[in-house]
Amino acid sequence: MDYTHEIRVSWGDCDPARIAYTARIPAWALEAINGFWEHVLDGDGWYQMELDRGFGTPFVHMEMDFRSPVTPRHRLACTVIPERLGESSITFRVTGRQDGALCFEGSFVCVFIVAGSLEKRSVPDEVRAVVGPRIAAAG
Amino acid sequence: MDYTHEIRVSWGDCDPARIAYTARIPAWALEAINGFWEHVLDGDGWYQMELDRGFGTPFVHMEMDFRSPVTPRHRLACTVIPERLGESSITFRVTGRQDGALCFEGSFVCVFIVAGSLEKRSVPDEVRAVVGPRIAAAG
Amino acid sequence: MDYTHEIRVSWGDCDPARIAYTARIPAWALEAINGFWEHVLDGDGWYQMELDRGFGTPFVHMEMDFRSPVTPRHRLACTVIPERLGESSITFRVTGRQDGALCFEGSFVCVFIVAGSLEKRSVPDEVRAVVGPRIAAAG
Amino acid sequence: MDYTHEIRVSWGDCDPARIAYTARIPAWALEAINGFWEHVLDGDGWYQMELDRGFGTPFVHMEMDFRSPVTPRHRLACTVIPERLGESSITFRVTGRQDGALCFEGSFVCVFIVAGSLEKRSVPDEVRAVVGPRIAAAG
Repeated sequence: MDYTHEIRVSWGDCDPARIAYTARIPAWALEAINGFWEHVLDGDGWYQMELDRGFGTPFVHMEMDFRSPVTPRHRLACTVIPERLGESSITFRVTGRQDGALCFEGSFVCVFIVAGSLEKRSVPDEVRAVVGPRIAAAG
Repeated sequence: MDYTHEIRVSWGDCDPARIAYTARIPAWALEAINGFWEHVLDGDGWYQMELDRGFGTPFVHMEMDFRSPVTPRHRLACTVIPERLGESSITFRVTGRQDGALCFEGSFVCVFIVAGSLEKRSVPDEVRAVVGPRIAAAG
Repeated sequence: MDYTHEIRVSWGDCDPARIAYTARIPAWALEAINGFWEHVLDGDGWYQMELDRGFGTPFVHMEMDFRSPVTPRHRLACTVIPERLGESSITFRVTGRQDGALCFEGSFVCVFIVAGSLEKRSVPDEVRAVVGPRIAAAG
Repeated sequence: MDYTHEIRVSWGDCDPARIAYTARIPAWALEAINGFWEHVLDGDGWYQMELDRGFGTPFVHMEMDFRSPVTPRHRLACTVIPERLGESSITFRVTGRQDGALCFEGSFVCVFIVAGSLEKRSVPDEVRAVVGPRIAAAG
């Protein structure tokens, strides 16, 4: 039931040590979070949130532990779990696995803002409606 | 029968003009070509070519025409067609479409080399066997 | 007198063949062109063009030849020469060198548009004033 | 005396919200850390460490707080401070500022390994010699 986002790791993602370059990994975690939004909001990710729905969710914090190297030999399965929904923020846990092995895990905090501004706002009802039950289930 | 590689365009690929940043487009064309290799070589892309099969295919030329903007509103379908197989080179045509509209088209030339060197070599038999018939069909 | 843009090539730009990944190269050529604009327009690049000056310069064509590998062992010097200024377009020649050796050369065509639209417009006077003399000098 | 690494933020780094896309920021912090190594190791960054010096420093942990948006209107000054040197690990603090304002701060932990392996090793003497005094000064 958790959302899993699949990444095709490839040659250009790897560095001379023949594993994915570290900076690719937070970028994939973000793509997975965007994929989570598309999954729960009828196909709408950050782009449609900002342009069509009038809100944004900038990141204020991230932390990641890198457990084992990522390579192009397997797809990278990134599971995105919303862990906490505050008054105007959301916390995600993202874990990346290849062929069953844990490659990374991380925590990401975003705040809700009015699109086109830096003004904080409460979690939109349309978000609370779809994310709330997932947090209860995860909790 | 042509190979089509699907790209999930997202927020982070777009620039302040709200369309995909130009430099993302050759990067996607390359990912599509790598996907073509995975498709015809039992899942092996550039990574496995270099590490397991002993050859590489560096690019010597690319040219691209940008026909219409790419956005996150649709998946980007990149069709990869091998157009010419020389003694030690291959030419690909890549076209990108969103929702049926042509977004870009380009031509890419790679040469075959011995892995870990800059030494040119003839097209490997395993490549000629799978790519040759596709070129005949395209021609 | 030509504008040269310096790139610090690093580990994360390289692939398992231990040279810069091909897709990094058009990205650097674009950064160099943006640097050219900053150089001739009092520090304003594409960002300020679009947001402050009211015009944009999307790419319609690029072609590149890759002559020798790029590595982190030297800075990459990208020279940007405006070659042609049309009614509503500009053509740049970009060449990249490391330690004196030619690594790539390419040609890039952009059109001038009204910011926030896809509507073509003539070359802004402020651009013609600073780029025109450079083209005469190059020609 | 701290090492500061300058980043040219540009159009292609920004997303439709007209600020740098979040995933660019850990990537810049890593570039700054690589720049720190070049600064203290006679121009050698991760590339030369791995290929010439026989050791690597993969990341095992990162955490970042995003304090204010990054834009192309100023250079981004990333200060890299080695905070702790363990038996086989190093911790960096990286802070990014634009025009004096704090944009982000983060902590990054790397372990020392034998190049081409995943085998941990003690901090190389050549590293301890140059980094040790900086940690004492910072402490």
